[in-house]
Amino acid sequence: EIVAAIEAYFGKDAPLVGRRALVTSGPTYEAIDPVRFIGNRSSGKQGHAIAAALSRAGAETTLITGPTAEPAPQGVQVVRIESARQMLAACQDALPVDIAVFAAAVADWRVAGQAPQKLKKQEGGQPPRLEFAENPDILATIARLAQGRPGLVIGFAAETENMVANAVAKRARKGCDWMLANDVSTGTGTFGGDANTIHLVTADSVEDWPRLTKQQVADRLAARIAEHFRSLPA
Amino acid sequence: EIVAAIEAYFGKDAPLVGRRALVTSGPTYEAIDPVRFIGNRSSGKQGHAIAAALSRAGAETTLITGPTAEPAPQGVQVVRIESARQMLAACQDALPVDIAVFAAAVADWRVAGQAPQKLKKQEGGQPPRLEFAENPDILATIARLAQGRPGLVIGFAAETENMVANAVAKRARKGCDWMLANDVSTGTGTFGGDANTIHLVTADSVEDWPRLTKQQVADRLAARIAEHFRSLPA
Repeated sequence: EIVAAIEAYFGKDAPLVGRRALVTSGPTYEAIDPVRFIGNRSSGKQGHAIAAALSRAGAETTLITGPTAEPAPQGVQVVRIESARQMLAACQDALPVDIAVFAAAVADWRVAGQAPQKLKKQEGGQPPRLEFAENPDILATIARLAQGRPGLVIGFAAETENMVANAVAKRARKGCDWMLANDVSTGTGTFGGDANTIHLVTADSVEDWPRLTKQQVADRLAARIAEHFRSLPA
Repeated sequence: EIVAAIEAYFGKDAPLVGRRALVTSGPTYEAIDPVRFIGNRSSGKQGHAIAAALSRAGAETTLITGPTAEPAPQGVQVVRIESARQMLAACQDALPVDIAVFAAAVADWRVAGQAPQKLKKQEGGQPPRLEFAENPDILATIARLAQGRPGLVIGFAAETENMVANAVAKRARKGCDWMLANDVSTGTGTFGGDANTIHLVTADSVEDWPRLTKQQVADRLAARIAEHFRSLPA
């Protein structure tokens, strides 16, 4: 806390002072009924670390997060949501921003016609038939805004196979500027773990980062973002 | 910790010394693929409190729990699992016991044919069709054991409507001795909250307990269990 306070005090010299940032983090939960939901194993560690790093770099940062056990980073405004639709609404409320990093693991689908009462098991009956509806694509929605698009839109691609190829295709499809591909296949320990192996895909390059802690990934990404804004015409 | 240590020291005078207890707690998670799962909003607070209370009352207690943020209770052997099938196997491993309290919120269904790779969203494609298979009924399986059935089998019925009627029917259907019905409808705050309104259904009575904290519910249940064993012929 002392370090954070000192950094906050000297923040006027930080490279992203005067910039606004939005970061999403954690899983989304999509309700099936009042007690059941579909979730995913995102811990929020990477997104929270990125929000903290951008804040330390001087950016006025809003973190929009699904349910996680991670503490709120120092100096960051935290907005807690559960579903993908709530996350999109919170992102729209946080605009305008210069930097948007979508690190949350957002559910692609929600359950259509969510039950108002707990679904009861019928003895000897059939299992429920869950009907799904596609969730809004938060990354693509913000990346393709005609008005008020953030200057730098960054997505994550959690992949279990063909990481870079999938990330290159996903970057183009979503309309974002950078895509960070990371390996979440069984055994890598990415979900809930402390390390991440990242490939940074831009419009014209692929950077392979070494295996880093999520904290190091966050610091490196914040430095790359600062470099990007430094290189822009004033 | 000092209080727990003193209680542990004086435990030889506690009413359930020499008894073995098994308690389940928390949610179960059923995997859809390596990253997604179906979960539920059980916090584990009630089950963990019951395990702690039985241990304080002198019972040698095993707690079998799904993913929760609750700390392991002092003096209790904790077994951590995720799925319903893992929970049943852990319960069978914990036998023989005198007392079994099934406080976990176990998923009725699991996803059949769990995907080995992350399910990818196909652009413009249909949502996934999840096929479900019925999970083992842990409460009924243990309550109906021909050999090695615990002397006192206690279930929970989380209800959003017709609480007592549903619990009376469920007690008979499962073959357990006592059923504790609690109201989990939206707005009661039972899931994740600290209080519980319980109706204790036995073979020949329904007791309406006042609104109590989960800690008080645990203490009252442990006292009722001790009374039950005191009243048995030696």
